[in-house]
This record gives sequence, structure tokens and C-alpha cells, in this order.
Amino acid sequence: MPQNIFDDPNFFQGYSQLRRSRQGLTGAPEWQVLQKMLPPMHGLRVLDLACGFGAFSRWAREQGARRVVAVDLSEKMLNEARTRTSDTSVAYYLAEMENLGLADASFDLIYTALALHYIQDLGALCAALKQILTPHGHFIFSIEHPIYTAPSHPGWQTMPDGTKIWALDAYLLEGRRVTDWIAPGVVKYHRTIGTYLNTLLEHGFRILRLEEWGPNAEQIEANPEWADEVQRPPFLLIAAQLEAATG
Amino acid sequence: MPQNIFDDPNFFQGYSQLRRSRQGLTGAPEWQVLQKMLPPMHGLRVLDLACGFGAFSRWAREQGARRVVAVDLSEKMLNEARTRTSDTSVAYYLAEMENLGLADASFDLIYTALALHYIQDLGALCAALKQILTPHGHFIFSIEHPIYTAPSHPGWQTMPDGTKIWALDAYLLEGRRVTDWIAPGVVKYHRTIGTYLNTLLEHGFRILRLEEWGPNAEQIEANPEWADEVQRPPFLLIAAQLEAATG
Repeated sequence: MPQNIFDDPNFFQGYSQLRRSRQGLTGAPEWQVLQKMLPPMHGLRVLDLACGFGAFSRWAREQGARRVVAVDLSEKMLNEARTRTSDTSVAYYLAEMENLGLADASFDLIYTALALHYIQDLGALCAALKQILTPHGHFIFSIEHPIYTAPSHPGWQTMPDGTKIWALDAYLLEGRRVTDWIAPGVVKYHRTIGTYLNTLLEHGFRILRLEEWGPNAEQIEANPEWADEVQRPPFLLIAAQLEAATG
Repeated sequence: MPQNIFDDPNFFQGYSQLRRSRQGLTGAPEWQVLQKMLPPMHGLRVLDLACGFGAFSRWAREQGARRVVAVDLSEKMLNEARTRTSDTSVAYYLAEMENLGLADASFDLIYTALALHYIQDLGALCAALKQILTPHGHFIFSIEHPIYTAPSHPGWQTMPDGTKIWALDAYLLEGRRVTDWIAPGVVKYHRTIGTYLNTLLEHGFRILRLEEWGPNAEQIEANPEWADEVQRPPFLLIAAQLEAATG
């Protein structure tokens, strides 16, 4: 049973206050990089996995996507998404990412932002997503960067000479991590970059691009509190495409 | 002018004492993983870049490679390689990796171990290597892992609770790093994983596999001093293949 912390009232309240929740896509600092990794939306059938408040679903339709199916495991998130959306070509529904029940070869693009690190079995998910993608379909996603999810005690430390460092350990020790983020006891699954890429490759995906996101100079100028993020990337963005000839 | 610290007598002496220098491929802990990323050697025309003492060149020939061209920028390394090799189908010659002067489409496999982090312009190198590879030719390499090369002060720290951590900073700040390794003042170039992958992709390579190497349980049992390497990977191994239809 996947964790559904998003329906916890306190967590939901905290999550709703995040800049990316209030402002949508432009409130997510990595969006301008992620956006460039997407194929042209015109005419696409899009699956928005872990759609949250539906910002990407609405954007995809504005860019000409033919239709969007948007899935989340939180009823509260979906209710808010429905409230924010007036477009009958976006269909919101409640489902676990691992158990979608969608038709084979019915999507040209699967998009999921900052959600796959909550998934325990990435291989099973890739196998399922491969089925519902068309040949040459795209799978574009962001996750918390493995350098960010790895540590047993994630956080910054100040060295004797004043250098601020990210206390990295356990990078190659994949598996469950419990952290406090908005609410205590949020469960994530740490995997290496190698595991993400090789799992995609083993399931017939081709890697198109990989970005280890950090703020650019302009963003740091506007948001000085982001400056430390260049010391270790908070997000990993991957663009992959299904090969045509896989079984 | 590339750095040629390998012809410094003291450096050469120290380098010659390394386990990987004395024992060849089996002395390199990452070899058993890297070996699995290689195509079958039979009949291949192989370029061994930064060949050092020639261990890979000899192995490739033993596995059936048709011929091997082995290049290094150190005359001392090449002399030792020639001494260790009795095989007229291995040709050793002195050249900089960036200036090889080899014929177009003349190699099926380019291999280079722990050398690309000494190269300043990875894009120019990929453009040159692409020219001398055959269509579908393989490019397989190991480098020091970007987590290992990034820090301004690379090293382990012990946290107040006793946890040993790798003091990571400057990961997204690519460029020159000066470290003391065998000799003082060794110059390396730090690049992110994203830059390695995207540079390959932009030059028409397909990614086949990526391994962030750390010791397995058996290796730690035999070499307890390697145990900490699971906290942060020391090596990154990448297998790529040239697309047929690139310009």
C-alpha cells in the first residue's frame, strides 16, 4: 500500500503553502529546464502521474495536447485540481501509480514530477508504463536527486574553515529513507542515478537527456536563499523515449 | 598543453606501486563491472586511450581483438607497456588524447580508463572520437565519479554522532580541481554526470549503461579498507555506442 501522506490534513495544509503549490509550474525553480526536455505538446495524449493540483495538466492542454489523463492517490489533491481546472479534456482520477488500469499504447507522453522517489519498485513501474506508452512515446520525469535522498542524516554542515558542505553518506546503499518534510516520518526510496538509468534502459527506453538541476545566476540573484543548491543538486530530471522495436 | 605528470620520476614511481599498476586489470576493483559493459572483443579494432602499462590492450588481444592501437602521453608508461607486451598486433604510440591523428571510421571500440577527468574539453574529444569510430562503434570508459572530483576539500569527515560522511560541495561548479594524489598539484576537470551524458548524446552517442561503482560484499570481505566506498562511489563507468545515422 503506497503511502498517502497527502491526505493528512496537516501535511496537505503545509504542502498547499509551498511556492510550487501556490504558483504552479512557474513556482517550481526547475521548471524552465524541465520544460525544455519535453516534446512539442501539440496533439499528444498525455498522462500526468501524481498530478497534484494539476498545473502540468492544464499547461499541457494550453500547449495543444489532445487530452490529458491526470492521476493522483490523494483525493484532496484531486479535488483541488478539479477546482482549478475548467477543461473537459483533462480527466482526473484517483489511482496508485503502480496500479493504473489504463489501456495499452494509449499515451504519447508520461510526465511525473517529484514522485518516483516515493515508489518502491521502479522496475515494475517502468514495465507498466512501457505498456501504456505508444512506440517512441516519451517518459519525462523529475525526482529528488540521489545525492539529496542518500544521506542517513541529510543536511548541511559547516567545516572548520567555514566551507558549507552536504554531509553525504550511504549513496550506494539503496532503499527506504524516512525524513521529516512538512510532516514527520515521510518515507522515500533512495536509488542511485545508475539504477534509474539502467532500469529505464532495461525496459526498452532510450535516454534523451539528464539534468542535475541547480539554480542559474539569474535565479540566485532573485532568490539568494537558493545559492547553496549549487553545492549539491536538489533535483534530477530525466528525458527518456520508448524504443519502437522492444517486445 | 595537457598535463604530463606521468613522466615525472617521483609520480611515475608512486604510480607504479599502485595495485592496479602492479596487478593489471584484476588489480582494479571496478574491472569486473567494467568488463561486463564491454562488447565481445572478437574481431574488433580497438583503441586503448591512455593505455598506461597496456593491461587492457593485452587483455583485448587475448579475447580475440583483431588489432589494438594503444596511446599514452607518457613515454615512461609506453616503455613499460612495450616491455610487458609481446604481440605485434598491439601498436603503442605517444600522443595526446586530444590530437590523435587517426583515420576516420577505423575503430570498433574506444576504451579509456580513469583518464577523461584530466581532459579539459570533453565536447571536442567526443567530436574527434566519433570520427574515428565505425557506425555503431562502442565508447566505454571509466572516470573518477563526479561526487569524488567535486569537493573543494575532498575527504571524509566524522560527524558528532560518529557517522563518517563525504564532505560534498561544488558539485554543480564544473571546472579545474587541483589535488594532491601521489604528487602535489595534480590538475583534474570536474564535470557533472549530466554533462558527461549530455555531451555524449549531443555527439550522436546512445547510452547503453551507467554504473556508479562501489565494492560488493565479497570485495569488502577481502578488502575491509574499501568498506567506506559504499558511502560515495569512487568511480563512474559509462558504456555508449555511436548511432549509425548521425552526421
